[in-house]
Amino acid sequence: MGSNLARNLASREGNTVAVFNRSYEKTETLITEHPEAGFIATSSYEEFAAALQKPRTAIIMVQAGRGTDAVIDALTAVFEPGDIIVDGGNALFTDTIRREAAVRATGINFVGAGISGGEEGALNGPSIMPGGSAEAWQTLGPILRSIAAVAEGEPCVTHVGTDGAGHFVKMIHNGIEYADMQLIAEAYDLLRRVGGLEPAEIAEVFAEWNTGELESYLIEITAEVLRQVDASTGKPLVDVILDQAGAKGTGAWTVQTALDLGVPVSGIAEAVFARSLSSKPAQRAAASAMPAAAAEWAPDDRAAFVEDVRRALYASKIIAYSQGFDAIVAGAEQYDWDIKKGEIAKIWRAGCIIRAQFLNRITEAYAADPELVALVTAPYFTEAVAGALPAWRRIVSGAALAGIPTPTFASSLSYYDGLRADRLPAALVQGQRDFFGAHTYKRVDKEGTFHTLWSGDRTEISATDAH
Amino acid sequence: MGSNLARNLASREGNTVAVFNRSYEKTETLITEHPEAGFIATSSYEEFAAALQKPRTAIIMVQAGRGTDAVIDALTAVFEPGDIIVDGGNALFTDTIRREAAVRATGINFVGAGISGGEEGALNGPSIMPGGSAEAWQTLGPILRSIAAVAEGEPCVTHVGTDGAGHFVKMIHNGIEYADMQLIAEAYDLLRRVGGLEPAEIAEVFAEWNTGELESYLIEITAEVLRQVDASTGKPLVDVILDQAGAKGTGAWTVQTALDLGVPVSGIAEAVFARSLSSKPAQRAAASAMPAAAAEWAPDDRAAFVEDVRRALYASKIIAYSQGFDAIVAGAEQYDWDIKKGEIAKIWRAGCIIRAQFLNRITEAYAADPELVALVTAPYFTEAVAGALPAWRRIVSGAALAGIPTPTFASSLSYYDGLRADRLPAALVQGQRDFFGAHTYKRVDKEGTFHTLWSGDRTEISATDAH
Repeated sequence: MGSNLARNLASREGNTVAVFNRSYEKTETLITEHPEAGFIATSSYEEFAAALQKPRTAIIMVQAGRGTDAVIDALTAVFEPGDIIVDGGNALFTDTIRREAAVRATGINFVGAGISGGEEGALNGPSIMPGGSAEAWQTLGPILRSIAAVAEGEPCVTHVGTDGAGHFVKMIHNGIEYADMQLIAEAYDLLRRVGGLEPAEIAEVFAEWNTGELESYLIEITAEVLRQVDASTGKPLVDVILDQAGAKGTGAWTVQTALDLGVPVSGIAEAVFARSLSSKPAQRAAASAMPAAAAEWAPDDRAAFVEDVRRALYASKIIAYSQGFDAIVAGAEQYDWDIKKGEIAKIWRAGCIIRAQFLNRITEAYAADPELVALVTAPYFTEAVAGALPAWRRIVSGAALAGIPTPTFASSLSYYDGLRADRLPAALVQGQRDFFGAHTYKRVDKEGTFHTLWSGDRTEISATDAH
Repeated sequence: MGSNLARNLASREGNTVAVFNRSYEKTETLITEHPEAGFIATSSYEEFAAALQKPRTAIIMVQAGRGTDAVIDALTAVFEPGDIIVDGGNALFTDTIRREAAVRATGINFVGAGISGGEEGALNGPSIMPGGSAEAWQTLGPILRSIAAVAEGEPCVTHVGTDGAGHFVKMIHNGIEYADMQLIAEAYDLLRRVGGLEPAEIAEVFAEWNTGELESYLIEITAEVLRQVDASTGKPLVDVILDQAGAKGTGAWTVQTALDLGVPVSGIAEAVFARSLSSKPAQRAAASAMPAAAAEWAPDDRAAFVEDVRRALYASKIIAYSQGFDAIVAGAEQYDWDIKKGEIAKIWRAGCIIRAQFLNRITEAYAADPELVALVTAPYFTEAVAGALPAWRRIVSGAALAGIPTPTFASSLSYYDGLRADRLPAALVQGQRDFFGAHTYKRVDKEGTFHTLWSGDRTEISATDAH
């Protein structure tokens, strides 16, 4: 990804790119393979620093972790105040906050920048989510704008906020991506196992969906993957791929961070867990003979069933994005970042993995109401969910009876029904907590905090003073 | 909780308890209120240390966090090698690992001990989960056995493992407790909203359930809470309690830790998220007018419906415990703890919040097969799930149609159907990941790692060497 980003940079007018790798061999290979880039090869940090115009800008692309700290240390040793170090990897945002503070103390700017788009995006234009100082953004903005993807004439990059804001938002992007992929996988599974469609037919369904409100990169590539035939067996490729999904950690980070922030990102969590469940071959083998007690589900009207799945997918997707933006709002509040939610949706419209037309609707929702408390409650999304609801309920209900796992569809529907519920059984949970742990409760009809003397005479006492 | 634990200790033959509080006033109050305990009041750490027999044993009961470190520092300053410091709070197990290593370096023993049972358990006999060294356990074992709850003649305490093992297992206990409470809350909600039962009637249902396979402390106290009538309004107490559930963090820790360990604890996660969702009044208010599009669900046979809910609850509970024990197995492997799963189930049979007859079945399952890869696959539990399955499917399916949120019932069923699935759509996820990120995939029919040249000629290459 680093070499592709360097090639992207070098291809833009006015940019000259110096390259440094820990192994000079890699640098040589890059330069030999891409003479058109006009790279300046450097073999030491000193040489690299000397090759750059001031204020210098370095973009680090290394595996997140200790390696990043080592490279930052080496660069701060040869850089000067006012120079800029950009970490373009998937660093954990709390590491970025720590690093930014440490580097800032030297007078050098440190920018954690989330970069999404994979290998191809890096080369042709990624979506870029930089944090860091406003000063750094002045120099960095034009450079990043020159290499970013373009959506409807606008470069997919914005100054997200200070210190770790960029990596935080990139992490949430990836969390949403996990949910989106799992939702598509559940839709595929239903079309296959209930709809009785073959992968090539499902590819056509996804290609068709890609012309409507679901239009997105992930839907598009799903059609491509499902269309692919394995050369050695003649079977659909998806049938010869081992069904154990891997993960690189940003999905788990999203859920862990949301738990710290108290934000329910249940759809993202179910997607992360679906991957880890799939990767437990010993458990799956032990459970494979467990009873199904499932009902046959053979829809009379296949086209109607396919449309139901599409609607369930769309509604669940809205929930996943709503939860993701909740996490952004909570993170911004916790870390004092001035994040423009509408701008984030805008820079995700192209370049990144979750790119989609759909994101314009999110931008519009936040433009209409910057203080929107939950994305799903914006008029456009409420209407979209309303249109999908009967189908969504049929799909989740049918899958439960038929024994088809739909963890993310089902979780998203339960979240929706929980959010709109007049009363939740959380009141009972509060009663239980007060019973066994004297955790106290509030009342619907008066201010204060109360405790029932459960092991005493069961009268209620005010606990406002005691706690 | 600290004073109750001290009273419990003092009440056992052969124990003399010295008490120290940051505020001497608290110590005086305790001693005045409980002359029967024969406490030795101390007003400084030096005095406290001087009052103890060697090897000294101190049990710290303070809010988890920095306060704990301060008390540990103060005690290590006045204690001698061979003495024992026990942290009986809910410390994060990684903090306990760090503290144990630091204290061990002074020759003093440090034991992180999870203690469950709330205020009452502390006084009358809690379930105790101590970690730490075998040396510390020699001295501490008899003391803790003297104060622990007793289940079928056996004290509910065992040496869980070294360093942080005790606090780890206590954390998982609490995670399971979150799931158990949320499952009960969902059952209550269904009985109320679909079954049309009043809280007092539901109390009777729970009391009845408490005589069967669901018998447990949480079911028992649920009946008590639902029976309670509010004195000021004459309404059921559960109807005047604000439906926003609080949390102290150990549920979130369980999920965060399980994510690090790659263990799907989806039921526990949904329970934690259900609490945080309930505690978002602004979001809930904004969503309260969102469409339901729900079908009326009025079961013809109310008794059959109640029995369906009971079975769905039991099956979901088995999944929650299975996921919790998966996390214990993974934690033991990661941190090199020799944790006897059957012993853990045993010491949870009394004293703690999740105490239940049911735990004997878990002990038996691990006795029959110590290498059991997933609790739910043990014969007893497989049979229990088989008996519950049709009801479980009806409940999850019906709730989805009726618009009743059942996040944990639904998640547990999807987990079960995922675990037993022959093929999961994780294969498609791997295809997508290979498409956009060249993350590679494995095949079902040959060894190695592969990549399709998606942006090239779409042939497949071996990626085994490249990664």
